[in-house]
Amino acid sequence: MAAAARLAGRARPLARPNPGVGALVVVDDRVIARGWTQAGGRPHAEAVALAGLSPEALAVATLYVTLEPCAHHSDRGPACTDLILADTPQRVVIGQIDPDPRTAGQGMKRLQAAGIAVSLLNDAASADSLRGFLTRQREGRPWVTLKLATSLDGCIALADGTSRWITGDAARAHVHAQRARADAILVGGGTWRADAPRLDVRLPGLEARSPTRVVLTRAAAPEGTTGIPAPEAIAALEGVSYLYVEGGAETAAAFLAADLVDELHLYTAPIVIGDGKRAVGALGLAGLAEAHDRWDLRERRQLGSDSFAAYWRTR
Amino acid sequence: MAAAARLAGRARPLARPNPGVGALVVVDDRVIARGWTQAGGRPHAEAVALAGLSPEALAVATLYVTLEPCAHHSDRGPACTDLILADTPQRVVIGQIDPDPRTAGQGMKRLQAAGIAVSLLNDAASADSLRGFLTRQREGRPWVTLKLATSLDGCIALADGTSRWITGDAARAHVHAQRARADAILVGGGTWRADAPRLDVRLPGLEARSPTRVVLTRAAAPEGTTGIPAPEAIAALEGVSYLYVEGGAETAAAFLAADLVDELHLYTAPIVIGDGKRAVGALGLAGLAEAHDRWDLRERRQLGSDSFAAYWRTR
Repeated sequence: MAAAARLAGRARPLARPNPGVGALVVVDDRVIARGWTQAGGRPHAEAVALAGLSPEALAVATLYVTLEPCAHHSDRGPACTDLILADTPQRVVIGQIDPDPRTAGQGMKRLQAAGIAVSLLNDAASADSLRGFLTRQREGRPWVTLKLATSLDGCIALADGTSRWITGDAARAHVHAQRARADAILVGGGTWRADAPRLDVRLPGLEARSPTRVVLTRAAAPEGTTGIPAPEAIAALEGVSYLYVEGGAETAAAFLAADLVDELHLYTAPIVIGDGKRAVGALGLAGLAEAHDRWDLRERRQLGSDSFAAYWRTR
Repeated sequence: MAAAARLAGRARPLARPNPGVGALVVVDDRVIARGWTQAGGRPHAEAVALAGLSPEALAVATLYVTLEPCAHHSDRGPACTDLILADTPQRVVIGQIDPDPRTAGQGMKRLQAAGIAVSLLNDAASADSLRGFLTRQREGRPWVTLKLATSLDGCIALADGTSRWITGDAARAHVHAQRARADAILVGGGTWRADAPRLDVRLPGLEARSPTRVVLTRAAAPEGTTGIPAPEAIAALEGVSYLYVEGGAETAAAFLAADLVDELHLYTAPIVIGDGKRAVGALGLAGLAEAHDRWDLRERRQLGSDSFAAYWRTR
């Protein structure tokens, strides 16, 4: 299932508005087919994986799919449950139940009723690969990643605002790859006015992937952007399952204080600044106990001379 | 030689006032003896490694030693050059030339004159293991390690000064182990007055290793400490080859601004504080270019949920 979850990553973000799902067909411990949700959301991962397999192979095959096959009819294509019932693999292993009320266990039940062996794993790899979709379904808001790029002592710029560049080429390319996987990027109004950031994807071949731009501001939204007045308003960002927040410090603090950061991306350059601009504004913590046990290290790697770390909010 | 350099680490800091040296005796790619400088500086590493070896073994043996064998007579024991000339191993491989003017190549020359094959590696592992001694000899001051323990966003305390605890048990034990390897610990006068830190080693069995305490202050030194008025005055700290600077922010900035930090130890806790106390005070950088290309990542490891990184000043 971990392999199917990795495949699901390829669907992000082009499968929008559908979740990025991964599927594998296995016979005798050998992967004979694979699929992931295609651009625009169709075909679904299961349809891609099952296409063209012989009835003989299907009769002894196990289909691994990260999300419960959809049970509802759509104008855009057949329900995957129907596809699977037509192809009848021997066994179906499902990562996560689809919280969409139109499916929500119905897909699984229909497969079982037809005599297919169905297992539900409820595994972390599938859940992680679906985190934007699941957060949207369960919490009614996108999964939020907050990026901070700092010196070793936590500064994001010199005192005069100079921030080009704290991090090096490899770290900046990594940021652009993250932008390409997001549905929307958000910065604060102050950062927008001060830096006029392009917030686009400047990676060869991925320029067209530049996501929607959102500005956190009580004033009118700058041209070409969507404005929201407070972090809580991200719920209203239609079609956005992955939101990438790039600062500045007051915006970072607003999202952290609202407990609306799910993933923290920290780029640390091997420099010391001292009296520079801070990464995060006032959080108003009453004590250190409040700050502990909130962040789990999920990934660390070197990007040139910079260090990258991803922390996920424990929930 | 890297193995001999690792052995040398065991001599620190008890070999004081002598440098911590490591030595290995190798016959046919097999280590047959080893030694490191003993407590108080005697016997030297070579004397320990050569003790009790048979003339037959020595005739085909190579002695690896991280520092050139001493050539000068001392009331405290024989010169290692004389010991080696008496034992005559087939070959001697030296890591670094001893910059002490009483040796400074004389040891190597005397061995060569006696027909022993001598090689000088000038290797980084030996130099690194002798960094306190070499910095003392060449620059007339100790090697300085600056410790910073911060949140992910570079704070060392809440705004009200609360700093117990940012990091966890494993990181704090690592700090105590660093103290045990230092000749002296330094804090600023403000930190001394605010926290009254004990600055001792609280590790089972190592309590007696608590180093000399130094306070950076223009006022009178607190009782039980040595006072220095400015970072440059570390040159006068007699017998101190390894100085461990523990803060606070103004002291960190003073040492960094004077370019008197050789090694930066960064403990990062998985917490976000926001508007807390900064790790480093004003450095007055004119631009980011000044900040780059000064620090090399030398080590990174997890200590419980905290991350430890050691950066060395590029010189």
